[in-house]
Amino acid sequence: MNPPVGGGALSPITPSELAARARTAASRLAGRAAALVLFDDQYIQYFTGFVFSPTERPIALIVDPDGARTLFVPRLEREHAEAMASVERVVAYPEYPGETHPLALLAAELKALAATGPVGIDHDGYPPVMGYVGLPLSGLLPRGVVAVGRALDEQMALKSEHEVALIRESARWGAYAHRLLQDGTKVGLREDDVAAAASAAATRAMGAELGEDYRQRNKWIRGALAIYRGQVGAASALPHALARNAVFQRGDTLVTGAGADVWGYLSELERTMFLGEPSAEQRRWFHHMLALQDLCLAAIRPGAPAASVDRAMRAYVDEHGLWENWRHHVGHGLGQRIHESPFLDVGYEGVLRPGMVLSVEPGLYVPGLGGFRHSDTVLVTDNGIEFLTNYPRDLRSLTLPA
Amino acid sequence: MNPPVGGGALSPITPSELAARARTAASRLAGRAAALVLFDDQYIQYFTGFVFSPTERPIALIVDPDGARTLFVPRLEREHAEAMASVERVVAYPEYPGETHPLALLAAELKALAATGPVGIDHDGYPPVMGYVGLPLSGLLPRGVVAVGRALDEQMALKSEHEVALIRESARWGAYAHRLLQDGTKVGLREDDVAAAASAAATRAMGAELGEDYRQRNKWIRGALAIYRGQVGAASALPHALARNAVFQRGDTLVTGAGADVWGYLSELERTMFLGEPSAEQRRWFHHMLALQDLCLAAIRPGAPAASVDRAMRAYVDEHGLWENWRHHVGHGLGQRIHESPFLDVGYEGVLRPGMVLSVEPGLYVPGLGGFRHSDTVLVTDNGIEFLTNYPRDLRSLTLPA
Repeated sequence: MNPPVGGGALSPITPSELAARARTAASRLAGRAAALVLFDDQYIQYFTGFVFSPTERPIALIVDPDGARTLFVPRLEREHAEAMASVERVVAYPEYPGETHPLALLAAELKALAATGPVGIDHDGYPPVMGYVGLPLSGLLPRGVVAVGRALDEQMALKSEHEVALIRESARWGAYAHRLLQDGTKVGLREDDVAAAASAAATRAMGAELGEDYRQRNKWIRGALAIYRGQVGAASALPHALARNAVFQRGDTLVTGAGADVWGYLSELERTMFLGEPSAEQRRWFHHMLALQDLCLAAIRPGAPAASVDRAMRAYVDEHGLWENWRHHVGHGLGQRIHESPFLDVGYEGVLRPGMVLSVEPGLYVPGLGGFRHSDTVLVTDNGIEFLTNYPRDLRSLTLPA
Repeated sequence: MNPPVGGGALSPITPSELAARARTAASRLAGRAAALVLFDDQYIQYFTGFVFSPTERPIALIVDPDGARTLFVPRLEREHAEAMASVERVVAYPEYPGETHPLALLAAELKALAATGPVGIDHDGYPPVMGYVGLPLSGLLPRGVVAVGRALDEQMALKSEHEVALIRESARWGAYAHRLLQDGTKVGLREDDVAAAASAAATRAMGAELGEDYRQRNKWIRGALAIYRGQVGAASALPHALARNAVFQRGDTLVTGAGADVWGYLSELERTMFLGEPSAEQRRWFHHMLALQDLCLAAIRPGAPAASVDRAMRAYVDEHGLWENWRHHVGHGLGQRIHESPFLDVGYEGVLRPGMVLSVEPGLYVPGLGGFRHSDTVLVTDNGIEFLTNYPRDLRSLTLPA
């Protein structure tokens, strides 16, 4: 199979789009927060393009009321931040724990803004990464804090055209890796060998197209990937399977996962496949799963409550007496993050809107037989949905010779 | 070079050691907390052996006053937790966000214990992973919470014999990978190719010795690894370098990193090397760095304040006027976590004790020329230190032909 062609002109999210995101967040929260302070690496990446792995040395982003961004980093990261982050200012503290706790220095940095009102935070302090010990930020600011994570997530859920283009490109490379995985799967081979070969070949082809400047920007996926994650045979009944490096056998139910990191953006493609002609029982569960995915896809439209999609799935599960085989809700938003809100979940409050990108992946799990789940990534449009993943969903196409 | 031999009989930390850890934590905190609730994946792994990647679906560990462990997981993870976690009980909640917020269900689960006193927590609620939105746990419990992360870190810092054996084994495989990296580095080759070949060969050799049951248990390192992380030539002056996949050139200063995941435990080995005969300037900085590491190693002994080691480094930096080239403290504890307390930092309060495992890695950074840092992993003993990493530190051994 030849790799996809023709999409290689894509580039990372631009500095002007990053700056506009910060201005949007600041203006949406103007009435509630005197400034924003964000610790989560994913929020910081979204507003600045700065990619990092959290350690015991806290990093924080301050967003002023006019959207100006200050990145607060340890001395160790100053040059890195100055070179890579789209921010107006970098402020470095010496070290953690250091002679003065970094959060006390952060509070000092915030002094003028925090005097005018509560500061909007994603989280009250920095989490206990690598033995970091700290204080709630709320105790260090004169007018306290207010949680703004939900508002940030609502902003992140609405993708720009550039973001959708990157996710679409990710889906093309995910499908290519998945095709290599499917074609390479044979009785007697080992899971890890087949997945490594498919992922390496797809990553090389993607790298050749995206060019020399390409580097990993996503936390969860590197390059283009197609894997089984142990979901081979009866072990596929566990969404996070325990088996490792299984040998493929005739009759196996297989559950895959594929995607790619295109300038920091992801997609999700999963398929249920059979190695050799499926049994009557395998067919029966496959058809239940496909019916569930079809009805969930049909329930997604602008204006519909996110919960209504999960309720549609649950009604089918009720009707057919399948609760023993249920494990999770229908799906979730995705983009820069591999999971994010909105959640297609009976408990999620919020409505679907054009520009949201969602995974649709209702699953059924049959102990001793296998797991049954397709996952597709779709864009909510003005009229309904557009598939961003394009890969056969039918039983014939997903039955492998054995 | 032949791979190390003779250490392959090691096994994971035993269920009885995991249970004893929980009893120790419960008894140490008996006067302060009615029970423990831990969200951080690393604490949960330490007390239960359960390895997972945090998502928007919170996972929490409850430790009763007698050390009994309850793992609180989403339905999706129930079978996985039952099979893999050393706990007395698994409790599953339906889903996140779900019809009832998981933290409300967690608070209900804690009801009897929380009525007797404040609950010890690593963090007040679950962090904003993948768009999770939640509440502080403190607001859901009648007698509030008390932070216990520091006490847990003090416990984790004192390694058992089994833990030290795993770290020592990790260091052997890290050194083997590093030797392959050093021997494979030649002018004109690419960083990523050399690192990938060394790491793959070392991982295969380690896998053959540790056996079929081996699987990744560490969050930061998979298999055995030796890499440059872009720290090639002048870019090595950035501790987290920006260059990617450099081509090696005669005259490059190189900074490496190596380690291995042995049943979840790590080690850290880093070396400064030169490709071709070093210049007078490169020699000068190398000797400063080596003098710094020597004096830090000499300062580590049981009973010494952790801060005193950093102060010794700072005194040398002062004396030689090197603050422009300083970026970070001397080092940190490590084990299951790649960084953890105690920190060899002027601001860390605490004393070094036998059984602690530390990285010793003072560094100097010279813009335009390179970074200068060795890192060794040492065990604090009754008398001083034992090197767990064994790899040449001298200039001659680290000068590569070019």
